[in-house]
Amino acid sequence: MIYKILILFFVLFLNTSISQDQIYEEQISKIYDYALNNGKSYDWLDFLCNQIGGRLPGTHNAERAVQWGKNELNKLGLDRVYLQKVMIPKWIRGSFEYASIITAPGMSINVPICALGGSIATPSYGLRAQVIEVKSFDELESLGKEKIQGKFVFFNNAMRKNFIDTFSAYEKIVDIMLHGASRAAKLGAVGVIVRSMNLRLDDYPHTGNMSYGDLPNKMRIPAAAISTNGAQLLSSMLSLNDDLYFYLKQDCQNYPEVPSYNVIGEIKGSKFPEDIIILGGHLDSWDLGDGAHNDGAGIVQSMEVLNIFRQLNYNPKRTIRIVMFVGQNNGSKGAEKYAEIAKQNNEKHLFALESDVGGFSPRGFSFEANNDQLKKINSWQNYFKPYQSDAFSQVNKKSIISPLRGNKTVLSYLRTDSQRYFDYHNAATDVFQAVNKRELELGAASIASLIYLVDQNGL
Amino acid sequence: MIYKILILFFVLFLNTSISQDQIYEEQISKIYDYALNNGKSYDWLDFLCNQIGGRLPGTHNAERAVQWGKNELNKLGLDRVYLQKVMIPKWIRGSFEYASIITAPGMSINVPICALGGSIATPSYGLRAQVIEVKSFDELESLGKEKIQGKFVFFNNAMRKNFIDTFSAYEKIVDIMLHGASRAAKLGAVGVIVRSMNLRLDDYPHTGNMSYGDLPNKMRIPAAAISTNGAQLLSSMLSLNDDLYFYLKQDCQNYPEVPSYNVIGEIKGSKFPEDIIILGGHLDSWDLGDGAHNDGAGIVQSMEVLNIFRQLNYNPKRTIRIVMFVGQNNGSKGAEKYAEIAKQNNEKHLFALESDVGGFSPRGFSFEANNDQLKKINSWQNYFKPYQSDAFSQVNKKSIISPLRGNKTVLSYLRTDSQRYFDYHNAATDVFQAVNKRELELGAASIASLIYLVDQNGL
Repeated sequence: MIYKILILFFVLFLNTSISQDQIYEEQISKIYDYALNNGKSYDWLDFLCNQIGGRLPGTHNAERAVQWGKNELNKLGLDRVYLQKVMIPKWIRGSFEYASIITAPGMSINVPICALGGSIATPSYGLRAQVIEVKSFDELESLGKEKIQGKFVFFNNAMRKNFIDTFSAYEKIVDIMLHGASRAAKLGAVGVIVRSMNLRLDDYPHTGNMSYGDLPNKMRIPAAAISTNGAQLLSSMLSLNDDLYFYLKQDCQNYPEVPSYNVIGEIKGSKFPEDIIILGGHLDSWDLGDGAHNDGAGIVQSMEVLNIFRQLNYNPKRTIRIVMFVGQNNGSKGAEKYAEIAKQNNEKHLFALESDVGGFSPRGFSFEANNDQLKKINSWQNYFKPYQSDAFSQVNKKSIISPLRGNKTVLSYLRTDSQRYFDYHNAATDVFQAVNKRELELGAASIASLIYLVDQNGL
Repeated sequence: MIYKILILFFVLFLNTSISQDQIYEEQISKIYDYALNNGKSYDWLDFLCNQIGGRLPGTHNAERAVQWGKNELNKLGLDRVYLQKVMIPKWIRGSFEYASIITAPGMSINVPICALGGSIATPSYGLRAQVIEVKSFDELESLGKEKIQGKFVFFNNAMRKNFIDTFSAYEKIVDIMLHGASRAAKLGAVGVIVRSMNLRLDDYPHTGNMSYGDLPNKMRIPAAAISTNGAQLLSSMLSLNDDLYFYLKQDCQNYPEVPSYNVIGEIKGSKFPEDIIILGGHLDSWDLGDGAHNDGAGIVQSMEVLNIFRQLNYNPKRTIRIVMFVGQNNGSKGAEKYAEIAKQNNEKHLFALESDVGGFSPRGFSFEANNDQLKKINSWQNYFKPYQSDAFSQVNKKSIISPLRGNKTVLSYLRTDSQRYFDYHNAATDVFQAVNKRELELGAASIASLIYLVDQNGL
């Protein structure tokens, strides 16, 4: 008798378990079908890139993007859509930037450069000086003031090609872009030229954030990125004649902080409305391209998640909130403000997901979570196998969502195929056409599926 | 005592096993580093696409590719490089192809079409007829002779978007392209227009193989592909006016068989020279683009494998042979001839690998093998994890290498991220610029790593 009960119990349990699996599988299949057949992410991205364009924080375009985001979220019929005011730094590229290698008196070759975000301008008549090429801060320090004084420092450290995950190659050398100017300025340099963070040889300079840290204003020097082809050319010319001069002219400018807005929308949870799951990316972008991969893709994918839930009549148990963060390109002001207000309001953030790695084929997700949470998350991995999006890993990094760290909030990140990312990152090539519709949509579907599982199961 | 011996044995065994793992991991790491830093595949592809171009079987360009392949293999210093004569069918697109939708007497709209490979020409003055739109052979049959007679059959079956592996979506409907003309001809159609096998909406017609089977010559009708945008337009115009006329003019032509050549090169095995491992793709291509993804990528990746082995001074135990098959686009003549001669010579083929899925990010491999072989192969999966190329699966399909089936030969296939493949497949868009250098190189490195493991361990 006891055996029969046990068997009955087992059978019932097994049945329940199997049908739960099937429910999840079917819902996830519907999510992918919807994204690939009827998704709106690609059309949204078209508008964001081609009708709005580059969205440098503090510019009119960035504010148009805020209004557009709010309007589009309203159209989705969410339970609540609102703006969250944030003061953000403002930096403008200005009307010209120009550089040349002076090969002989009166003779020069133009090279493609762009000012780094946050850099000061050169004098209005430009800056003309000799060049010293280095690969690292160690090399810079070993040369010392004597060799650096009065010169441009040319940081010519190429991204390493043999990292399979290209973000790892980027992280290895991004400090040069960020701190190169302040390090070189302390040794008397007049300006810095940084090799673009691009794995290809081409003619596009790639911009990015730089910071002077606590360097006094009068010591600050202009910083620009040079295209990879330009870097190769300058390096080979220096090897023939290390006395050659370089000329740089740029009129970018830093302004006082200005107000902008995080754009927020949510579907209220039907069962646990206090449990908040957020997802998003950064709405602002660099100005050379249209910010298609960085991070238009993350924005429209996040919008698509809420759209899919609405279209499939999925009524989440927990509150699902999209946050379009502002001010990511020159700090994380939007994200810090969001975390600050969440704390003030005693909001319980269960899960936060960032999509900020381009609209490429999704490969999986990385997570910052405790062991119990990871165990639960890893039990979902198989649902992503049929979609080739099942690479789950652990991570701990600085990101848009890291101000939400703590309080058991799981931080998670979309992972994409990163091979092409740095062909476009922060360059004029980061335009709508560089994004493949299916790859973008698959990313949105992967995120929606993960958010669905978190909503169903909690963490 | 016995325990101590056992423990000692265990420790020794464990040590050996670990160091064997390390040897493999290090060698595979070297392979990837070489491919990404110094590989030649991208330059080879540049030449094949931009200096040679489209390589329709039996054309001067295809023969130039044969000579180029032979010369390049010779430069690698292989133990043996030779050509293998094959008689192949020849089909030429001719000097014009043109189509329009006749909306009213004297008024028409041009639509982008291309003849399907193997199709006959229209009369020199073209073909003008009404159009009947169908989605499937079932629908065609149900309409019957009465409705089909004297008309164009317009097969407007779109590739299904919700297959994650886009090749599955292709396989679902490729029979329409292959047999549509003969099926429609039997019901009295005068020509067929097939919607291009492309997941995007764009203006590029995609060619491909068609066959009349045993249909008598006098019953054969012209077959062309229409771009996806053209198909949408034609369909929407038919929904407004199903009496409209379509005009098609093309002067493609089939010729008697001509001689061509498989290009073969090998490194002789140092320990088991009789064990043959082959890898390759098809050297010929369609003519609308340059055959970059289909299958220039597979050719240069295969060349790269031998190049890497030579450059790393890797001396294989078994014979590693590249085969650039000819005549793939209109049959598998090259592959059949290769298998036939291999059989005549009693050659023992251990392993055959095909790369014919485009130069996209590799995801893994599929295998046709027996259980013991699969067990061995699956034990290598972990070596591919760090390279995100560890999706191993079983398969049984018709391919270039399927004539080698039997005799315990393992058949294997590179698997790539397939999202973008049909944007380019057999269209004017399949050019060098559509291939990403890193993605191409990673594919070559994945293949080289697998071939290395087969060579080390046998099967």
